[in-house]
Amino acid sequence: MGTQAREVRLKSRPEGMPKPENFEVAAVDLPDPAEGQALVRNLWMSVDPYMRGRMYDRASYVPPFQIGEALQGGAVGEIVASKDPKFKPGDLVESMLGWREAFVAPAAMLTKLPQENVPPQAYLGVLGMPGLTAYAGLLEIGQPKAGETVFVSGGAGAVGSLVAQIAKIKGCKVVASVGSDAKAQWLKSLGVDEVVNYKTCGDLLKAVQTAAPNGIDVYFDNVGGEHLEVALEVARPFARFVECGMISQYNNMTAQPGPKNLIYVVGKSLKIQGFIVIQFAHLREQFLRDMTGWIKDGKLKWEETVETGVENAPTAFLKLFSGGNTGKMLVKLS
Amino acid sequence: MGTQAREVRLKSRPEGMPKPENFEVAAVDLPDPAEGQALVRNLWMSVDPYMRGRMYDRASYVPPFQIGEALQGGAVGEIVASKDPKFKPGDLVESMLGWREAFVAPAAMLTKLPQENVPPQAYLGVLGMPGLTAYAGLLEIGQPKAGETVFVSGGAGAVGSLVAQIAKIKGCKVVASVGSDAKAQWLKSLGVDEVVNYKTCGDLLKAVQTAAPNGIDVYFDNVGGEHLEVALEVARPFARFVECGMISQYNNMTAQPGPKNLIYVVGKSLKIQGFIVIQFAHLREQFLRDMTGWIKDGKLKWEETVETGVENAPTAFLKLFSGGNTGKMLVKLS
Repeated sequence: MGTQAREVRLKSRPEGMPKPENFEVAAVDLPDPAEGQALVRNLWMSVDPYMRGRMYDRASYVPPFQIGEALQGGAVGEIVASKDPKFKPGDLVESMLGWREAFVAPAAMLTKLPQENVPPQAYLGVLGMPGLTAYAGLLEIGQPKAGETVFVSGGAGAVGSLVAQIAKIKGCKVVASVGSDAKAQWLKSLGVDEVVNYKTCGDLLKAVQTAAPNGIDVYFDNVGGEHLEVALEVARPFARFVECGMISQYNNMTAQPGPKNLIYVVGKSLKIQGFIVIQFAHLREQFLRDMTGWIKDGKLKWEETVETGVENAPTAFLKLFSGGNTGKMLVKLS
Repeated sequence: MGTQAREVRLKSRPEGMPKPENFEVAAVDLPDPAEGQALVRNLWMSVDPYMRGRMYDRASYVPPFQIGEALQGGAVGEIVASKDPKFKPGDLVESMLGWREAFVAPAAMLTKLPQENVPPQAYLGVLGMPGLTAYAGLLEIGQPKAGETVFVSGGAGAVGSLVAQIAKIKGCKVVASVGSDAKAQWLKSLGVDEVVNYKTCGDLLKAVQTAAPNGIDVYFDNVGGEHLEVALEVARPFARFVECGMISQYNNMTAQPGPKNLIYVVGKSLKIQGFIVIQFAHLREQFLRDMTGWIKDGKLKWEETVETGVENAPTAFLKLFSGGNTGKMLVKLS
C-alpha cells in the first residue's frame, strides 16, 4: 500500500520577481516507512522571504534549491505511520519538509511539538523560526533599553509584528512602518506608538522624523532600501541596526546602490549587524518560556494569513513580496 | 611679562577638499597663568583625518570648529610656568590644545605624560589616540582570532600600520592596502603578509581576492568607498567590519551612493560597527601595558612624517587626504 502526495517543485530559477510559472506541482508515490522512518501528513507549511535567496544558484549558509526538486521549508504535520520508537501515529511534529502534502523521512529530521495551549501552526510563526528571529534579533543584537525608541520596518509581518510587541514589553517607544492602513490599525490596536504607512505617507524620512522626533536607538530592518537610508538618517549615536532582511532588494535584477548616508556608521558610531536565526538556537528554551508567558498574559498577539492547498503555496509565497500578508503567511495543507 | 604665540585659525569652512586659504595664522598675546593654570609651550601637534568632520557646521559627538577661532587637536608640550601644584616647569603634558605654539590653560585640561622610554610625540601616535583607536577598534570590535584573515585599508597610516602589526601579533594573516610602493615595502618589512597598492593594482577586487583567496574575517576600514565594497564582496560569513573612518568620503560635495552589495550584511551575517575612541577609555591602562611591551620586544614599530612650524600645520593636514604621510603625520612646533 503506497500513499500519494502532491509537492511543489522549482521549475525554473526566477529572474527578478518570481512568477507562478517558476513552480510546478507534481504527484509522487510515497514508500512505506522503513526502519527508523515515519510517514508524516503535513497540516501547515510556512512560506518565508528568506526562501527567495535559496532560489538563486549560489553558495550561501543554506544550499540552493535544485530545479526539478521539491522546495523545502518549515512545516508541521501529524505522524501517520512510524517505524521509529520516538513517534506514534497522531503525534504532531515539525520539520523542514514543507511544500509537500506528506513525506517519509528519518525520525532525526522530525521534532515533536511541545504541548502548549497554542494551535500547531504557531510553531511556524510566533513560537517558531520567525518568533525566535524577532526575539533574538531584537534582544541580542538590538539590545533595546526601556525608554529607547525602536523602529521596525515590515511592522505587520510575521517577524516585524512580534518585534514591535516585544519592544513594547521591554518598555520602548515603538515606531513601525507598514504598507496598508489596515495593517497600521492592527498595530495601533496592539499598542504600537506610531505607525507610518510608507505607501501613502509621502516623504518617508519626514514621516519617520515626525514619528520619532528624538531619533531612534534600534532599527529592526526587514526591508532595506529607502527604509535603511531613512533609519541611518534618524539614528541616534550608538544606535543598533538589526539586519534581519532586505525584502525590497531580493528581486533586483541588478545590484542597487547602497544608502548614500552610510558614512553615519562612522560619525554616529552605529552597529549594523546581520544574523541567522540558528546562531541563537541556544536561546530556544528561554525564548519559548518568555513567549508563552507573554501570550498567556495577553501581551503578545499574532495574525495569520492563510492560503489553502499545496498548489497555492506559490501564490502564498508571491504575496510576501507584494505585502499580501498580515502577520504570518501560512499554507493549510489538510 | 607676556608671551606671544602663533596659532592657526579656521578662516572659512572648506567646500570639498580643504585648501590653504581656509586657514589663517594669527599671533596672540598670552596672559600670565592665573591660580590653577599653567603656561605650556607645545613641542608637537597632531593632525588627524577626523578633524575634517569638525570643519563642517553640524552637530556631532564633538562640536564644530568655529570660524575665526584656533583649531584644536592633540598636542604634547612642556610646562613653562605653573600656578597649579600638579605641574612644574619642565613637565611634559598632553592636551587637546594643538594648532598653537603655546597656551595658558587650567591644569584640568592637561595630562602629564607617563615616563616611558619613548619620545614625547609617541603620545600623539602609537601610545596616543591613534594607537588606542587601532588597539581597541581591532580587538574589541574586530575580535580577530589566530588564523583568521584581517584586511586593513589605509594600511600605512597612523592607525592602519598599528592595526596591521597588532593583527600579526595576534596570529592573523594580514592583508593591507596602501597608496604607494614605498608604503608597501615598509609594511612588508614589518611582516605584513600581503600588501596591495590600490593606485596601481588595477582591479582592486581581484587584487584583494588574490591576496586573500579564502576571504577575510575582519575588515578594518579607514577609507570607505570602493574598499568597503570590495571588503563586503570578500567577507566570509560572520566577518566583522571595524568602521574607523571613510577618508575617501570626507571631502565629498554631495553624498555618494553606498556599496551596491550591502545586502551581504544580511546574507553573510556581517557586523559593521563604527566607534569613537573615548568609548574605550577604560582600556587605556591595558593598552599602554600591551603596546609598550610589544615596543620593547621589537614587535611594534612606527613611522612619523613631520612638518615643521605651526604655519605648516594646514599643509600637514592637507597631506592626509593625498596620502602624503607614512605613519603618523605630525607638526614639530619647537
